[in-house]
Amino acid sequence: MTERDEFFMNEAIKLAKRAADEDEVPVGAVIVRDDKIIASAYNSREKDKNPLFHAEIKAIDDACRALGGWRLVGCTLYVTLEPCPMCAGAIINSRIERVVYGAYDNKAGSFGTMIDLTQYPLFKPQITGGVLKNECSAILTEFFKKKR
Amino acid sequence: MTERDEFFMNEAIKLAKRAADEDEVPVGAVIVRDDKIIASAYNSREKDKNPLFHAEIKAIDDACRALGGWRLVGCTLYVTLEPCPMCAGAIINSRIERVVYGAYDNKAGSFGTMIDLTQYPLFKPQITGGVLKNECSAILTEFFKKKR
Repeated sequence: MTERDEFFMNEAIKLAKRAADEDEVPVGAVIVRDDKIIASAYNSREKDKNPLFHAEIKAIDDACRALGGWRLVGCTLYVTLEPCPMCAGAIINSRIERVVYGAYDNKAGSFGTMIDLTQYPLFKPQITGGVLKNECSAILTEFFKKKR
Repeated sequence: MTERDEFFMNEAIKLAKRAADEDEVPVGAVIVRDDKIIASAYNSREKDKNPLFHAEIKAIDDACRALGGWRLVGCTLYVTLEPCPMCAGAIINSRIERVVYGAYDNKAGSFGTMIDLTQYPLFKPQITGGVLKNECSAILTEFFKKKR
């Protein structure tokens, strides 16, 4: 974990908070290339009535448009929650080189917690988990506490 | 495997052939509810410059619009190739109840071949693999033979 990782994770945290404000499960993501944010997104499954609209998927979609191609070479994705199988698979398919995530996800985390998709003969991004994990977890805990 | 399964798989095969005609890895998918096709799609990763645009993802996106919600309850997805982690994860997230696939995928198949995502504590669709697998495989083999 570096200061740079904390900086970009804080940007993802801001997006997660916007999701919470819109009554969506609060997860935010940014994609960074050459130290610049080229895509940022947050979960909007309920508003958009679409199970694909996790933060990571929306960010990958935007980054492909920004770069004009489907291979996100040289990109790092920062996300406040460990990716689920869908998002981990999308990250692998997009050739994102590095993933930095915040909170661990016991239920669906697919870069080390529930399963580890980097253990299979697929493209292997470099993974750093647990960056600002307390801050990232707190947003989720607070959200679900209010929901009860 | 039933006659109905073969019927809808043949519809997915037609879509895979359209992908091949457009020089895309030939995979096709349809989503069926109450014996009606509510969404149909084929892989268009190259044309759309987007790694998310696998047949299954595009079909799920269309089905959500058709049904007006993110839970694809009562739906069956037919796809000519065993889903990759991204697509298997999207199927699970969308609550599609049953998946019927054709060819097995040794490299990335995530409903039984490389991994089996139904073995984890996630939503578990019912899976039928290998329906018209020879026909489905032949389209892929032919495509990659021409590419060499």
